Amino acid sequence: MSRPTKIVVIGAGFAGLAAVKALRRNPDVDVLMIDRHPYQLFSPLLYQVATGGLPEDDIAYPVRAALPGVSFLRGDVARIQPEKNSLRMADGTDVSYDHLVIATGSVGTTFGIPGVEQYALQMKNIHEARAIKQRLFGTYEEVQESRLPRESLRVVVVGGGPTGVEVAGAVAELQRSLHREYPAIADYASITLVEAGPRLLSMFKEGSSNHAREELEKLGVEVKLNSAVDRMYESDLHLGTGEILPTGTVIWAAGVAAPEKLGDIGVTGPGRRLLVDEYLRMQGSANVWVIGDSAAFTENDAVLPMVAPVAMQMGRHVAKTITAVITDQPLPAFVYTDKGQMATIGRRRAVAETPQGISLHGTAAWLAWLGLHVGYLAGGRNRVSVIADWGWNYLAWGLGPRRAVIE
Amino acid sequence: MSRPTKIVVIGAGFAGLAAVKALRRNPDVDVLMIDRHPYQLFSPLLYQVATGGLPEDDIAYPVRAALPGVSFLRGDVARIQPEKNSLRMADGTDVSYDHLVIATGSVGTTFGIPGVEQYALQMKNIHEARAIKQRLFGTYEEVQESRLPRESLRVVVVGGGPTGVEVAGAVAELQRSLHREYPAIADYASITLVEAGPRLLSMFKEGSSNHAREELEKLGVEVKLNSAVDRMYESDLHLGTGEILPTGTVIWAAGVAAPEKLGDIGVTGPGRRLLVDEYLRMQGSANVWVIGDSAAFTENDAVLPMVAPVAMQMGRHVAKTITAVITDQPLPAFVYTDKGQMATIGRRRAVAETPQGISLHGTAAWLAWLGLHVGYLAGGRNRVSVIADWGWNYLAWGLGPRRAVIE
Repeated sequence: MSRPTKIVVIGAGFAGLAAVKALRRNPDVDVLMIDRHPYQLFSPLLYQVATGGLPEDDIAYPVRAALPGVSFLRGDVARIQPEKNSLRMADGTDVSYDHLVIATGSVGTTFGIPGVEQYALQMKNIHEARAIKQRLFGTYEEVQESRLPRESLRVVVVGGGPTGVEVAGAVAELQRSLHREYPAIADYASITLVEAGPRLLSMFKEGSSNHAREELEKLGVEVKLNSAVDRMYESDLHLGTGEILPTGTVIWAAGVAAPEKLGDIGVTGPGRRLLVDEYLRMQGSANVWVIGDSAAFTENDAVLPMVAPVAMQMGRHVAKTITAVITDQPLPAFVYTDKGQMATIGRRRAVAETPQGISLHGTAAWLAWLGLHVGYLAGGRNRVSVIADWGWNYLAWGLGPRRAVIE
Repeated sequence: MSRPTKIVVIGAGFAGLAAVKALRRNPDVDVLMIDRHPYQLFSPLLYQVATGGLPEDDIAYPVRAALPGVSFLRGDVARIQPEKNSLRMADGTDVSYDHLVIATGSVGTTFGIPGVEQYALQMKNIHEARAIKQRLFGTYEEVQESRLPRESLRVVVVGGGPTGVEVAGAVAELQRSLHREYPAIADYASITLVEAGPRLLSMFKEGSSNHAREELEKLGVEVKLNSAVDRMYESDLHLGTGEILPTGTVIWAAGVAAPEKLGDIGVTGPGRRLLVDEYLRMQGSANVWVIGDSAAFTENDAVLPMVAPVAMQMGRHVAKTITAVITDQPLPAFVYTDKGQMATIGRRRAVAETPQGISLHGTAAWLAWLGLHVGYLAGGRNRVSVIADWGWNYLAWGLGPRRAVIE
């Protein structure tokens, strides 16, 4: 009998976990999962951690517990060496593979706009979400104590995609609850959402975009369209329109891209993502596969978006293609099944669209969003906590206390 | 009309909050609460945060939300200046008062035993609890990856009081759940509880002490009595008996004392606490009051213990005495009403004693402990979260996943 095929998966996000879950049922393969953190992050809810709605523990899930029986290595990959079929880890050790699956996700990108790297807050990992939370709540304290000017209470969110809309709505709801704890300064808080293009949620239909904008405005968000960011300083944001926005906190939700390192090992396309063929294989390689936000997969002349449903479907599919390679079967091509899209705006405010062309706005869309997110949360335990927290938020909004923010 | 009397309360713990809650109903006083953190910590549950059972957000509660209408100042007090009736803050500003209430709590103390300060982990604030959690879970990862020896999986808790018993039991339960995630190393984990005196829980009756010891041993805790700590090195603990315990983590629960600074302003007694008269007034002062763990109050020739029920009763009482001073009424003397005591050992394992001499052991005591702690949790929101987390723990113990540990 030959030795089992060794498959290494880098990245414990939606894509990597889906791949490993599908592969571990195959007795002829050895799977090793590598990530720099021993937990999976439920990133669609990062904005709730950033705005004090959920404790960070609720959206992280221990990988070893999720994958009993699978080998897991916590570590940083320094270099992928396709010519040697091995990885060089940051601690100097090498890890060899027969097949490599790259699922390293994406990071926030600033498009090189001056000052953004330095002054804006990204929201792609738990440390960044924690930094936003500490900035927001720390500012309330500092302004209350007159150590910062009231202008610091102005928050700007850059980027009118689903993440920007979600975080702007959540900041607006947070600001509406400030009167209880900071009555003297609450009226000076404001939230502005800045979008370079002519409408919010550009991948949705125009009706949904307009609905999102109206709902945000009802919550108190000032929406500025056709307003690209030109440059940023410590306490103001300069728009291409010539307008200058004084601000204490800028949350950057204007775009994501794959990590720069990927460019060293293959040909990259839009968003620095690695180009893959119809089987999710890296162009020019026989045994390196790319899935999730790291992969640029073209379907009907468009590159698939960097969202969790694409990542999960790719993860499950790559398990099938690698199994086909090992067993000398013909490879199945990847076909994305569009399940529709949704974005939440606030409590009982959301938009959703099905691939059949049906749009939902308001409470129905919000309940669908809620059900889907609770359903996808990896751990039963986290599901219980999130339901308790959200139930409380819902029942006590405006009356009940928020959670404490601990430095 | 004369100006309102200005009362400054330092410390937002059980004692300080109880005082402020009682004082704020009085229209003739202005109350200012000062703490270096804008949240109240529910410290009896710190050991659950330290062992991954509860997220830290569940045991912290925003002070401003707890005290609507009360002025709150976040800051460090550098110096108390009784001769000027004012405080010097760390940022150089002065805060004046008519009456001062010192409720600054306690910190862990090492009794000057060599190496303890440097190598043992204290558990008196949320940052210390977080450090214990990261050490415990970080060690599992490092040993799994062979970066630390298996001896690092040995945990020692020093101190056989309620806190030591609680944390030793919680570590034992955590270690019993390791098989799922770390099957290769789980068997090397161990937990030892070291106590200098002849029995655990010395303030309980002997039956309760023995019960606690038996229950801990059933959970897998090695209990070493009559074993004072002599000195400590990075990876071993030397006992007075001559025994040397190799260990990766030492949790120090052997004693607490008031902060050293208090000695600068008054006469201190046992545990560096400020001596107070029968009205909770600092000896030799007319308008400085001391409550909670900062106060050494003698009753029936014994100094009251540093526990939450004493602190809360003192807080409520000092509000009455200060009001009496202001209104020229005779001062009421403080009398402590003993409600009994309890300590939890693990899931469905606890001991409780009433002042009438009734002892409860096992599930009944545990349920009493549970009800009392959930009842005392400051925020309705935290109560909901804690119940959800504990409910989950209880239902899924040994099956369900624990929470992730985020650096």
